[in-house]
Amino acid sequence: MTRLRIVEIFGPTVQGEGALIGEPTVFVRSGGCDYRCSWCDSMHAVDPAFRASWAAMETAEVWAEVQRLSGNQPLTVSLSGGNPAIQDFAPLIALGQAQGYRFACETQGSIAKPWLADLDTLVLSPKPPSSGETVDWDAFDICCQAARGAGAVVMKIVIFDDADYAWARAAADRYPHLPLYLQPGNPEVDPDRAVDPQRLSDRLLWLVDKTMNDNWFAPRILPQLHVLLWGNKRGV
Amino acid sequence: MTRLRIVEIFGPTVQGEGALIGEPTVFVRSGGCDYRCSWCDSMHAVDPAFRASWAAMETAEVWAEVQRLSGNQPLTVSLSGGNPAIQDFAPLIALGQAQGYRFACETQGSIAKPWLADLDTLVLSPKPPSSGETVDWDAFDICCQAARGAGAVVMKIVIFDDADYAWARAAADRYPHLPLYLQPGNPEVDPDRAVDPQRLSDRLLWLVDKTMNDNWFAPRILPQLHVLLWGNKRGV
Repeated sequence: MTRLRIVEIFGPTVQGEGALIGEPTVFVRSGGCDYRCSWCDSMHAVDPAFRASWAAMETAEVWAEVQRLSGNQPLTVSLSGGNPAIQDFAPLIALGQAQGYRFACETQGSIAKPWLADLDTLVLSPKPPSSGETVDWDAFDICCQAARGAGAVVMKIVIFDDADYAWARAAADRYPHLPLYLQPGNPEVDPDRAVDPQRLSDRLLWLVDKTMNDNWFAPRILPQLHVLLWGNKRGV
Repeated sequence: MTRLRIVEIFGPTVQGEGALIGEPTVFVRSGGCDYRCSWCDSMHAVDPAFRASWAAMETAEVWAEVQRLSGNQPLTVSLSGGNPAIQDFAPLIALGQAQGYRFACETQGSIAKPWLADLDTLVLSPKPPSSGETVDWDAFDICCQAARGAGAVVMKIVIFDDADYAWARAAADRYPHLPLYLQPGNPEVDPDRAVDPQRLSDRLLWLVDKTMNDNWFAPRILPQLHVLLWGNKRGV
């Protein structure tokens, strides 16, 4: 079977952001990423310096851990990272869906895999200018095509500033058929430091006000609920 | 045209709870309710003592105000209350949908109206024991039947304590086909007093832990985002 690089498997807890906010979920976080976003909140799953802490696991081992955490009760399994699309999750998805589990995945849309079409929910999160990365829209289009057949495909964009906001509007114009979620950026990503909930709230209010003042009603606007609740603590 | 008792029309802002959390919305709050929930957070729309502050408006006037607030850009209009199902919103829904607006409504499911079937989203929120009300499930069933044809029908239950939680599990067993949203109760409903965000977070964490520990993965669990952001301030 396929060997996977896994950073952590945790849950069940509720999904904290985006289309599935509030949904009971077990998270499978994979190691490795083709991006280096300036504000990445999961560098422990991105930077090869952490590679020694990533487990090499067979698909069956990953699946056994998901089953154990969920008490064999079907729920949503979220494939996150890093960029999970680097690896081959097709066997895990097949194993889980055969037992009634649903699979979601969040990826930036830089790498397409056939198993994107097997997902119940695909969240494509192209990175805005503040990330320091540049989106290859041709690669993104190939991901959209690869995902045909998935239960739902949505787009999520993190907004730190006015430039990100303008960029998100252009991205929304480019993909009007993708349900859109905006999320205020969180610059406080140090897991050893407490998060200021007032600053998080202020960022959400800023984004809500800006979007409403523009009469831009296409996106849903949501915070990272888990950060409001738990700060940057890992494994929750 | 139909004359409506209206408490307030406000927005656009984001929906703070339930299935449409994060969705840009104009709220139309109607006056009058057949319930008196002990923890009601909208007594100004329920208690006849406030009746003098409710406006008697023609449907066309309500619609004009929604258009003004939304800059004639279609979005979701949420009919709330009180119990909006007391009144006849059919003409308003027809007027709005003809111009591309979507309509959502939240009601306890005690009174059925034919226009429930015209909604894009109907949120049925039966009240648990802590409310002091007793649900008439026959009336609730009639609401479910009346709503056939609506875009989506979901159930939302507020949970204050263990008794509410047990009651919600039984309600979920009774209506397994309705997507379910759980929301921790907020006992701090005085609009003139600040809300303690830590207490709100603690209540959500309690509910998440309890539900996850029971391996009950059917409901989504969400806070009242607007209360986290704005406390009990009205008109936001």
